[in-house]
Formats: sequence, structure tokens, C-alpha cells
Amino acid sequence: MPAGEFRYPSSPPPETEDDEGWVWNQIKEEARCDAESEPALASYLYSTILSHSSLERSLSFHLGNKLCSSTLLSTLLYDLFLNAFSTDPSLRSAAVADLRAARVRDPACVSFSHCLLNYKGFLACQAHRVAHKLWNQSRRPLALALHSRISDVFAVDIHPAARIGKGILFDHATGVVVGETAVIGNNVSILHHVTLGGTGKAGGDRHPKIGDGVLIGAGATILGNVRIGEGAKIGAGSVVLINVPPRTTAVGNPARLVGGKEKPAKHEDVPGESMDHTSGISEWSDYII
Amino acid sequence: MPAGEFRYPSSPPPETEDDEGWVWNQIKEEARCDAESEPALASYLYSTILSHSSLERSLSFHLGNKLCSSTLLSTLLYDLFLNAFSTDPSLRSAAVADLRAARVRDPACVSFSHCLLNYKGFLACQAHRVAHKLWNQSRRPLALALHSRISDVFAVDIHPAARIGKGILFDHATGVVVGETAVIGNNVSILHHVTLGGTGKAGGDRHPKIGDGVLIGAGATILGNVRIGEGAKIGAGSVVLINVPPRTTAVGNPARLVGGKEKPAKHEDVPGESMDHTSGISEWSDYII
Amino acid sequence: MPAGEFRYPSSPPPETEDDEGWVWNQIKEEARCDAESEPALASYLYSTILSHSSLERSLSFHLGNKLCSSTLLSTLLYDLFLNAFSTDPSLRSAAVADLRAARVRDPACVSFSHCLLNYKGFLACQAHRVAHKLWNQSRRPLALALHSRISDVFAVDIHPAARIGKGILFDHATGVVVGETAVIGNNVSILHHVTLGGTGKAGGDRHPKIGDGVLIGAGATILGNVRIGEGAKIGAGSVVLINVPPRTTAVGNPARLVGGKEKPAKHEDVPGESMDHTSGISEWSDYII
Amino acid sequence: MPAGEFRYPSSPPPETEDDEGWVWNQIKEEARCDAESEPALASYLYSTILSHSSLERSLSFHLGNKLCSSTLLSTLLYDLFLNAFSTDPSLRSAAVADLRAARVRDPACVSFSHCLLNYKGFLACQAHRVAHKLWNQSRRPLALALHSRISDVFAVDIHPAARIGKGILFDHATGVVVGETAVIGNNVSILHHVTLGGTGKAGGDRHPKIGDGVLIGAGATILGNVRIGEGAKIGAGSVVLINVPPRTTAVGNPARLVGGKEKPAKHEDVPGESMDHTSGISEWSDYII
Amino acid sequence: MPAGEFRYPSSPPPETEDDEGWVWNQIKEEARCDAESEPALASYLYSTILSHSSLERSLSFHLGNKLCSSTLLSTLLYDLFLNAFSTDPSLRSAAVADLRAARVRDPACVSFSHCLLNYKGFLACQAHRVAHKLWNQSRRPLALALHSRISDVFAVDIHPAARIGKGILFDHATGVVVGETAVIGNNVSILHHVTLGGTGKAGGDRHPKIGDGVLIGAGATILGNVRIGEGAKIGAGSVVLINVPPRTTAVGNPARLVGGKEKPAKHEDVPGESMDHTSGISEWSDYII
Amino acid sequence: MPAGEFRYPSSPPPETEDDEGWVWNQIKEEARCDAESEPALASYLYSTILSHSSLERSLSFHLGNKLCSSTLLSTLLYDLFLNAFSTDPSLRSAAVADLRAARVRDPACVSFSHCLLNYKGFLACQAHRVAHKLWNQSRRPLALALHSRISDVFAVDIHPAARIGKGILFDHATGVVVGETAVIGNNVSILHHVTLGGTGKAGGDRHPKIGDGVLIGAGATILGNVRIGEGAKIGAGSVVLINVPPRTTAVGNPARLVGGKEKPAKHEDVPGESMDHTSGISEWSDYII
Repeated sequence: MPAGEFRYPSSPPPETEDDEGWVWNQIKEEARCDAESEPALASYLYSTILSHSSLERSLSFHLGNKLCSSTLLSTLLYDLFLNAFSTDPSLRSAAVADLRAARVRDPACVSFSHCLLNYKGFLACQAHRVAHKLWNQSRRPLALALHSRISDVFAVDIHPAARIGKGILFDHATGVVVGETAVIGNNVSILHHVTLGGTGKAGGDRHPKIGDGVLIGAGATILGNVRIGEGAKIGAGSVVLINVPPRTTAVGNPARLVGGKEKPAKHEDVPGESMDHTSGISEWSDYII
Repeated sequence: MPAGEFRYPSSPPPETEDDEGWVWNQIKEEARCDAESEPALASYLYSTILSHSSLERSLSFHLGNKLCSSTLLSTLLYDLFLNAFSTDPSLRSAAVADLRAARVRDPACVSFSHCLLNYKGFLACQAHRVAHKLWNQSRRPLALALHSRISDVFAVDIHPAARIGKGILFDHATGVVVGETAVIGNNVSILHHVTLGGTGKAGGDRHPKIGDGVLIGAGATILGNVRIGEGAKIGAGSVVLINVPPRTTAVGNPARLVGGKEKPAKHEDVPGESMDHTSGISEWSDYII
Repeated sequence: MPAGEFRYPSSPPPETEDDEGWVWNQIKEEARCDAESEPALASYLYSTILSHSSLERSLSFHLGNKLCSSTLLSTLLYDLFLNAFSTDPSLRSAAVADLRAARVRDPACVSFSHCLLNYKGFLACQAHRVAHKLWNQSRRPLALALHSRISDVFAVDIHPAARIGKGILFDHATGVVVGETAVIGNNVSILHHVTLGGTGKAGGDRHPKIGDGVLIGAGATILGNVRIGEGAKIGAGSVVLINVPPRTTAVGNPARLVGGKEKPAKHEDVPGESMDHTSGISEWSDYII
Repeated sequence: MPAGEFRYPSSPPPETEDDEGWVWNQIKEEARCDAESEPALASYLYSTILSHSSLERSLSFHLGNKLCSSTLLSTLLYDLFLNAFSTDPSLRSAAVADLRAARVRDPACVSFSHCLLNYKGFLACQAHRVAHKLWNQSRRPLALALHSRISDVFAVDIHPAARIGKGILFDHATGVVVGETAVIGNNVSILHHVTLGGTGKAGGDRHPKIGDGVLIGAGATILGNVRIGEGAKIGAGSVVLINVPPRTTAVGNPARLVGGKEKPAKHEDVPGESMDHTSGISEWSDYII
Repeated sequence: MPAGEFRYPSSPPPETEDDEGWVWNQIKEEARCDAESEPALASYLYSTILSHSSLERSLSFHLGNKLCSSTLLSTLLYDLFLNAFSTDPSLRSAAVADLRAARVRDPACVSFSHCLLNYKGFLACQAHRVAHKLWNQSRRPLALALHSRISDVFAVDIHPAARIGKGILFDHATGVVVGETAVIGNNVSILHHVTLGGTGKAGGDRHPKIGDGVLIGAGATILGNVRIGEGAKIGAGSVVLINVPPRTTAVGNPARLVGGKEKPAKHEDVPGESMDHTSGISEWSDYII
Repeated sequence: MPAGEFRYPSSPPPETEDDEGWVWNQIKEEARCDAESEPALASYLYSTILSHSSLERSLSFHLGNKLCSSTLLSTLLYDLFLNAFSTDPSLRSAAVADLRAARVRDPACVSFSHCLLNYKGFLACQAHRVAHKLWNQSRRPLALALHSRISDVFAVDIHPAARIGKGILFDHATGVVVGETAVIGNNVSILHHVTLGGTGKAGGDRHPKIGDGVLIGAGATILGNVRIGEGAKIGAGSVVLINVPPRTTAVGNPARLVGGKEKPAKHEDVPGESMDHTSGISEWSDYII
């Protein structure tokens, strides 16, 4: 193992029938191991993970305590989260898919529990899903209040109406902004400072649609009701105002397609899963300079 | 009304004689309506809005509770804000102008109360105005402490010496940085991650001057004592180091004027109010690629 | 002194033998002076600075109270910080070097105490150094929990394994992301929204190496195991995927070397110390447009 | 109505079939009326009562927030209470009986909601019932931790093993101490500073047994495994070390039976319900002096 | 000065024209002196006293922070207290009279600031006066909520309708209970665990009336609408159910008049001011045994 | 073992050479066992006991978190306690002696950790010892502030100048008041509501002196500079104004010596250790009535 690496010695998690139960057990085992080796953290690990009987309760507790304020009490939020997670199993399976996404795609993610406890992108996304549910139940003032807390606490600003798939990795996550009519597919990876923004002051459908398997690099800005095709890659710092075809790469400000507008190069892999930010970009970059 | 839209059914607010009173009444009506429809939020709405006799008290309470810490108590901050808002009516009228700006320009802003409670850009801006007042009263250590709290809590970093007009919309707001000698005019709209920065380590007048009605897109960086002319538009992700003439559009890194340096295209509308981020940009983007 | 300037009248601090003692005394004098002139802030100044017998205790107290949460108590963090600062004198001398860096390079930094109390970049960096120490002691779960708190509270996301030198200025700091295998030399200045990121999902050495005296402008993104040579300058908003030679300037997205790839212009000064963001860039910018 | 009196104009509550539902509706109506007349209190009333769908949830929320500490979080306690109240209907009916007891017997109790929110005796008793349940489930460390919080917060110290009936009024309640093997029947009224204590350092059954309908005056001390017969009255400040027969009155230090040891006077009423502290005592007091 | 004694070297405070201003200045001087000698306490002293411009603001701040809870925020209470103290000068003069009472009568009271900050009896009494004012303004739910907080935090339970004079010393104060229709005159001293209670479950005028200058010893219980005459003394632990004539002493359980019922001994001094608990009692005690 | 009893199965603790280490190990073992059996409490047990390397640190942490307020931060108090406990080994050995006292004398004390965590009398006494140390170091304002917090939080009011021995059991403890010049010997047991009070408003030596091995029953009031001889017993509710000879029993209000003033009955046991409250009292009580 290279120096500087640190990974829990668990075999790669299989996608079995009771996958969600497997992940929760894994989380508890990791937490137990950490609590034993680090007494200073044991209290934290027991209160957030080890004292809970399910992933839903653990997440509800953790989010309630993270997002509460002096005017929105932790008990109120805990209740809200617990109720949502208990009555909608899809929230739990989405959370598990996101945990897997972080674990597999982010080499700095040393364990599921590390992601559950510490990844603001993961936590913001789970809280968003509850806000989204409230939005769809027409409990919009509450959804917006939750949205505001997520933005304050995690600096992640996802409008509660935005639709987000499963297996999402918001890596680092600080500064992410996702607008009201944005849609994000499955298995998408989005780095920090990414904006999926609107334009103009008219309402209606005005935000980007991100296909499955897309990778959006740090600081990229995508504006308007444009379509980022399945498996496309958006380079870091790009500014994208037009559609990007599937499995192509757009880079630069304003964004250009690698390989040219007419016949852009197509890649084989799924960047949202391979997390390959730069191949196909750096050569080009060399070329340009 | 398109699907996914949600707006309070109030007629567009007239700018009457007692405009500020009208807006405060509207806020209370909205909050009352929300409290009735959503008991889980009623406590929050009463403590932040409905229990207060004026917009100034509501804002002071809300900011005091948002910005307090274990070493800067909410009562101290509340006192500070209340004193500032009570003795300086211009702070109140600026707040009302900002509320109107959000309501009119941001299609995701469903009500005044939504902005008052949840918009970190709005809250950071009102708190900044108080810090600015303290700065001008030579209460600079206090102004800087307040500045620091605003930056910690909202991730909005406006130096207390910066001068900011009325009718400002800081949309999303996370990551905004505004330097010490920056000046922002009236009716300006600034998206998140925008930097109005200095350059060099010498003091003196070293930050941008933003004219009335300017729109600055997400992630734009403007550095040095340059002048962004009235009604100009700065594209998302642009890096601007030189003056931008009035009613022109600068885009790219480094920023270029749309239409060319010599004879840039002039637009008619006021982008800071129309929020048109992309017209005139995307064609050009097409052209370039 | 130009209008809008505000500086403590202390002569520039000498680098004497007991430099660290000198700085601490200076901090206390500044705080005492502020407490006297501003009773509303006196309580804050006494609790954070004036009641403490050393810089280490003051910092530990301040960080403990800033970074605590309902599940990670301030007493636990205080203990952790105090223990680290007490047993490792290099942490204290690094803090003093960073205080000097802010004081000398940032014209908005009016005093050492202003930096100690209010600069999120300074505080995040000191807390990171403790997390890094824990990481190296194989107390990784604790290091990662601390990392997460720093990211939540300051929106500064530095992986605990990243190696950072002395005399660092993280100016404004919001949105900074520094990856696991990144290395930052001495006397480096890094503005907000800067990313030192990796690429791909494989582990190993995959993040930038930043030489001594480098200046990285706001919003710059540097990806992969590339080398930014000593005294180089990276323009705001640049996206850098390749090595940058010493004392050269890279700008743009994708980044180009000022003066051309083959024979880039070399500057004499140390940008990380001179903080000259734009000279050599703006002319070029003019040229390009 | 005499001056200084203040009562809600509701007719005396009937003991109907759905008595508990009736009381909860009454509480909500009172709270709604108070919230309307007193905006400053509305937030409190919504968070504690009006936002909840049942008495159990309201009580769990209120107790969780009252009894929490920095090391025993409100969410944990809320969960604990909610689980107990949801799974054991007898806890709810006991709470309703206690609410009725306060409302009927204490002329200063102006409403059910007043008791639910403000009576430390009522709240301590409901929390004790949960601690008692935990004790009986052999979750004793948790029961004792809860016991400790009740004693800290309300200055009411009831050992979790003590058995307490229904329709109990702990009036004022400060300083009440009830030992491990004490038993309290139904419809008992106990004033503040009352001790039901043990004696000696041996374990076993060593605390008083209080029959139905007993009234124990302020500051009375009853020690040892003695029996206070049904309907008996213990005068304020009495020290009782021996059995007291049913429907008799014991007063003084050491306590004597009114009317004499051999043929004590028997009263007809039930003092625990009539709250007649002094009749039969003051004449005797006159006589003695 | 005897060993174990510790007094601030101020001359006894004159009752001058601007007595209240004199006391507030004295408090600030004491706090300044303490802050200088004890840096660990300076933050506390600045936040509670030295940062405030008046006794009213200091008291409002201190009470707001002492009595707040997670559901009754400090800002709300601060506002409430400040409004009461600012609009009713009699509250301020009563507070000053109480400060003087503690300073003169309690040898353990080393300074005015010591009483202002640390005496729960003093603080409970000032908070009660505000609750009483609210009660008289028919803001009874708010008065009762405040009453409940005072009882929780200080273990001092004074019904908001109770009428209390000036120059009151509640010494130690834990466990004091004062009922709804009780009246306490001026210059009264009441020790801890004292009950001024009612009897029976009927409403109306049912609590004791305490004349000017009365001293009530620790643990005394006075029940019913009885009159304790001016300058009377009630021995510690006494249980009083009948009137006590002026300037006489009642002791015992049940209480007897010293000197006999027919011709009780009259004392010359004012016990509420001389604090002579035992003279006239101990001889008699000897005699009895 | 009788029903209702619950004891940890540890053999009675020997008084070995490293007695204090033994007790601390025992505490940790108990806590570990509890944490395992009750996950809901594990976080609490880790944060208060299991994460600490010594009894001193555990106590300092627990007291700091119990006694802190919004104006006296937990970190400050933790520091204060830790410093005191670390530099004065007698504080630690006194704490261990008090733990033993509770464990041996109180049948409801099921374990050392139960006492350490939950006994307000134990915690108030340890905090008092630190306040007393500060008092003797002439840090009196700090000692008094601590005194005030102890009284607020635990309702135990011990003047910081009071001198207290080792092996003390304050059982239940609510309402205990101990005056400035009081002295308490070793192996004393004091029940709740006990007052060791002064009399008069003159300073000087004016409070009771309690000999070794004394037992003072609930609600007893001892006033003035009187001497309670070694091994004496004071009955519950007694009011004592005169000296009580060694190994005698005083009961009643006013207190009389059992067996008569001239030739009081002497007992053999040490009531402070045997906790025999009533033998010798109840017969007499029978006799009187």
C-alpha cells in the first residue's frame, strides 16, 4: 500500500440482496473499531452511529444535530427526518447508493462511516432529498427553511424542487449551487463550486439537465436549460451555456468540445464513475499553449 | 402557471408612499399563512417574524440568532443590530429595497418572508450594512468581528469598509468576496462566488467600482481598482482586470468584450434588473467553438 | 494615511530572538487597546485572548469554541488542541509565521489580533496542522472528524494528510480545497476558492506540489500531481493541469504561460510575498482582446 | 370572581369516554388562545404544544428539551420519551390524571396547558414514570441518568424504583425527595420539600408507603418503612417516623396524631383531593400555645 | 479585619440624591477591579456588567441569559426585561433597594456586584417583579412562563401575582415558595426554604401577609391568610398557621410566641434589618430542654 | 438479594496502597459494562468517563459541562478544574474518599460511576473544594462566581470559605446551605435541606462547627457558632441553636437531647458512617405522643 494511504481492510462490498443491511452493518463495524482505537472519538461515534438501531435513525440524528439552530430545534428536525426516512424506503436506498458512490469513486474516502459522518456533500444530499419530498407534498415553506439551513451549514445550495438521482457523489461539495428546475441523473459525480444555474428573471424550466454518469469538474458553471448528455465530462472551471453531447468532453470558458464542435471525441468510460478528470484534456491543453 | 412553480398569490407590490410598511405587512401576512398551513414551522415563524412589531426588530432578532457564537452572544448582537436599525432609517429602506430586488428578479423567490428568513445573501448584506456603519463610526474592531461572523456563517465575505448601494441581490451568495475599497452601486445583482478583489500588498484604493444596474455572473472575478460601467454585464466565470464600459458585456478568462474591444455591442436593458445572464453570450460562444 | 485605512500604530515587528513572545505580547496589547475602546467587544476579547497566558492557550480556546458542535464538545476539542500545541513547539512557530504573513501581505489585516480572531484561513490552517499531526500519529478517524468540522465551519477543506509549510496566507479562504497528497511550501499565498485537486479514482500521489513563495489567485484550480515551481504565480480563475516553471506566471482556462510556452517571462519578485496578482497579466489581457 | 383570579372560561372537564382526547384538545385550544393574545409567547406555544399531533409527542418534546444537557442531547431524550409514551398507554392516562389533579386541586392552576408547560412537579413526575419503566426493564444506568437530570433540572429527586400511582399532584415540587422503595398511591397530593426517606445504610424495603388520597404538607419528612394510611393528612413541617392510621392527621416534630395517639380524630374528606391543609390543625395549634 | 473576611474597601454607601446612579457606578468600579485582578473572570464581568450603559441593561442581559432555554430564547427574554426596566423606573429603584439590603444585612455579601451577579434570591426577585408587572397587564400566560423559568433555574417559586415591597433580602433563596395572594412588605428578610403558602383548593385571598421589617428564618412555613405583624420574627423551621403580632417572635412547630401567647415579649429592633435570628430564642430553647 | 435491589457484582473495594487508582479503574470498568449493555448511554459514558485518562480529567470535564453557562464557558471551567485537580493531589484523594462514602453508606448508590456521574451532592462538593482553594488563593470573585453556579445548577449552596473534610456524603443534597465560617469534619453525612447557617448581620466566626462522624438528618437547621460534637446525630427537621455533645442525639424543634439535657444518652456507633437516622429517636417519639 502506498505511503499516505489509509483504508479499512474490508473486502469490497458486494451488491447482495440485502445490500442496505450489509452497508449498515459495515458502518457499525467501522465505528466500533474506531471507537476502540480512539477513545476521544468514542462518544461521538456512539451518539451518531453506535447507539442507533438503523441507518435511518443514525442519519436523522446526525442531520438533526448538524442542521439545527437556536430557532429550528434539533428535536423538530430529527422528527422530520425520521418520519421521512421511515415512511419512504427509497430515501434509504438512495443514501446507500450515495455511500457506495463515495466509497468507490473517492480514493480519500476510507470507509462508509467516514462518508456518513464527515462528507458534507453526502449529508447535504440526503437532507435535500427530504426537502424535495416536502416540496412535492406542498410543504414548501418547510422545504425552503430546510434548504436554507443546508446552505448555511454545508455551503451547499440545492433548491428543494431540483430532482436528483441515486449514486451521487458531491465531492468536497462546498459552494455547489443547483437551481429549481435542474435535474441530475444517476451515478453523477459533481465536484465543489459547481453551478447548475438559471438565467433571466422569468420562471419556468430554466436549469440544466444532467444525464447519467456525467462528471462535472470543480468550479464548472452550467447555465440555462441545456442538456449535458449521458456520460459526458465537463472540465474544471468550464462555463457551459449549450448542450453537450453524450460521452464527450467540454472544457474552457466558454466551453468547447474536445475534438471540435463538429466531430467531438467520444470516450468509452463513464466519467461520473471513473472520475477521470483530465485525460483527453491535458494533451489538448498542451496543444493550445 | 408552469409545473414546479410556487408563488404567493399577492399582486405585485406597488411602490406606494408607505412602501416599507406595506412590505412588512406583506411579510407578516405570508408568515401567518405559512404558520397556519405548516404547524411544524409555526414556532420558527412566530419567533422570527410574527412576534415582532417591526421589520427592524424581526431582522435584528434573526441576525442576532444567526450570527451569534459561544463567545459573541445573541443578546449582544441583537442589541447591536436593534440599535443600528432603530437609529438609522436608511438601513431599513435599504433592506426593503433588497427584499424587492430578490422578489422581482429571482424567480425562485416565492415571497418576501422567504427572502427575509432564508436568503443568506440578503442577511449577509443587511448585517454588512451595520458593520459598515460601525466602521464609519470608528468602531472597527467590532465591525471586523461582525465581518468575521458573517463570513463564517454565510460564507459571504464583505469587508466592512466596502460601500454598497440599495436594491442589491446577492443571489445564492456563497463564496462572495468584496474587498475593502470596493464600491457597489444601486440595483446591482451579484451571483455566488463573485470576487471583487484587490491586488498587491499595498493599501489604498485597490478594489473594483461597480456601477448601477450591473449584473455579475456566478464565479466572476474582478480584480483591482477597475470600473465596471453602469448597466454592464460580466459573464459567469469571467476574470476581469480592466475597465468595462457601460452597457457592454465582458466574458471569458481573461475577459473580452462581446462585439470586440474597439466597438463592443451595447445592450438596452439593465442586466442587474433583467437578470439576463446569457443572451449575447451563447451565440458568441457558439461562434468561438 | 489614505482614507479608508486603519492600522495599529505599532512599528513593523522585528524578527528578534524571542519573536514568538513579541508577537503574543503585541496581540495582547492590541486586544487590550480594543477592549478599552469598545466595551461591547471586551468580553469577547478577554475570553479569547486576554484571559490566556499564552498564544497556544488562546488559540486552543478559540478553535475549540469555533469548531465544536453538539456532538463534538468544546472541552474535548480544547483539550485536543491544547495538548497538541503544548507538546509540539513547531505548531506555535508556524502559527506565528502565518500571523506575520497575514500582517505583512494583506493590507486589510490591521493587526495580529485581527488575524488571530477573525481570519478563517488562519484558523483553518492552524486546526489543519493539528489534524495533520493526528493523521501522522495514525489517529486518522479523529483527524478526519476534525477535518470535517473545519470544512463545515470555515468552508476550508484541507485533507489532514496534506503537508503545509510555514508563513502561509490563506486570504479570505472560503472554498479552498486541498487534497490528500498535496504539498504546499513555505511563504505561499493562496486566495479563496483555490483547488489543489486530484484526478481519477485511484489512490496514490495525485495532487499538486506547490513550491515556496508561490501566489495562487482567487478561484484557480490546479489538478493532478503537477509541480508549481518556486516563486511562480497562478492567475485568478486559471485551470492548471501541467507543471509551471519557477518564477513564471500561468493564466487562463486552460492555463497558458505568460510570454509563451517556450520562453515564458520570468519575474524577479516572490509573488507569494509581494501579492502582485495582476502585473504581467493585464497587459497580456489587453493584448489578447 | 375575586380580584387576582384568572381562569380559562372552559366548563369543568367531564370524565367522558375519550377523556384523554378531550384534555389534549382542551390544551391545544388554550394554547391557541394564548398564542393569539400574546405573540411573544406564540413561538414557545407552537414549539411545545401546537406543532404536535398528540399529548405524547408534546410531552416528549418538552421533556427532551427541558432535561437535555451538553452530554445528554435533546434528540436522544426525545427519542427515549417518545418511545416510552408511544408503547405504554398507561403513561399517557397517568399524565392526564395528573393534569386533572393539578387543575382541580390547585387554585393557582389556571389551565391544563399551564400545568403541562410550567409545573415542574408534573413534568418531573412524567419523566419519573419513564425512568421507572426503564428501571423495571433493567435499563438501570439509563434510568439513573434520567433520575439525575430530573433532580438537577427540577430539584425533584424521585428514585427510579419508587412506585407512584395516578392523579398525583406534586405542588411547587422543589426539594421533594422520594426514596427507592417508597410507594405512593393514587390521588395523593404532596407539597414541596417533602421527604419520603429511608434510614440506615442497609438495603431492602426501607421507605414510606403512602396510601390513596393522602395529603402531605410542605416540608414534611417521613422516614423509614412506615405506612401512611389512606386519606391521612401530614401537617407541614412534620417529622413522621411511625405509622399514621387512615383518615387521621399527624402534625409536629416529632409528629403527633391530632386527637391523641389512642383515639385520633378521623376526618371524612379525602385531604389529597380537598387540599385542606390546616383545618383540624390550627385549633389544636391554638390550644397548645 | 478578622481572618476569613473579605470586603471591598468602599465606604458605606450614602443614600444621596442620585443614589441609584451611585450604586451603578459602584458596581462598575467593583467589576473593573475584579476584572483586573482576575483575567479568567474578566470576560464574564464585561459581558454582564462592564459592557452595559446602565443597571437596567446589565440586569436585563444577565436575567435573559440566566433564564433562557432552548424554547424561550435569550433575545426574547432580554427584550422583555429591557422593555420592562426601561419603562418602569420603580423596578430599577426596587432593584437598588434590594442590592442595598443584601449589602447591609448579609455579612457574606462582599460587594454590590457580587449580589447583582451571584445572588439567586436577588435575581429571582427582580425577574419576579417583571412577571408581576406582566400579570397586572393581563399578560398572564407570559407571566406564568417566566414564573416557571425562575422556579426551574433558581429554585425560587414566587407566583407572579404575589406583591412584594422594596428592600427585600431573599438570602440563599433555594426553595422559597410564595403563593398567589401573598403580600410582602418593605425591608423584609426571608431565608431559604421559606413557604408563604395557601391552604385548600378554593381560590381567593388565601396566602400570608408579611408586614414591613419582618425576618423569616430558614425553613419556616407560614400557611393561610394570616398576618405577620410589622417587625415580627419567625424562627427557623417554624410552622405558623395563625397571626403573629408586631415585633414579637414566633418559633417552633407548631409555632408559639416567645414569652407566651397572652403577653408575648416585644423586641425593639427590626429583625428584617438586624438579621438577628436567634436572640430571644436560644435562651428559651435552653429553658425548654 | 432483595427484589428492587441492583448492585454491581464487584467485591467491596479494599483500601489498598493505590486506592485511588483502584477506584478509578473500577469506575472505568463499571462504565464500560454499562456502555455495552445500554448503547443509548454509551456516548454519555464515553464523553464523561471512558475517554479520559484519569479521574481528575473526568471530573473536570463533567463539572465543566455541568456548571457552564452562556457567560461562563465550559472550556474556561474545564481549564480551571483541571488545573486545580492536577496541582493539588489532596483534591483527588478527597474525591475518592467521598466516592467511597457514598458507595458504603448509601444503599441506593449502586456503583462508583453512578455517584461520579449522578450525585449532585458529590459533584457540588468537589466543585466546592476547588472554589475553596480559589478563595484561599485570594481569587475570591472567581470563587464566588463558581459558588453561584453550583447553587444554581445543583441547588447546593456552600460558601467557598467553608472548610469541609474528607469522606463526606451529601445525600440527595438539594437545598443544602453551608455558611462562610462553617467547618465540617471528616466522615460526616449530611442529608438534603440541611442548613449550617449564621445569625445576625455582623461578620466574623458565626457558623456551626461539625465534628467528625456526625450525621445530620434531612431538613435540620443548625444556626450560629455552635459545636456539634464528634459522632453526634441531629434528627431530621431539628432546629439546633446550641452545642450538642459528642455521640449524643438532638431532635425536635427546638432541638432537645435524647435522654435529657443533663444526662443525654450516648451511642456507640458513628452515625455519620452507620447512617442510622432513627434508632433512639422513634422510641422516644412514641413516648412523647
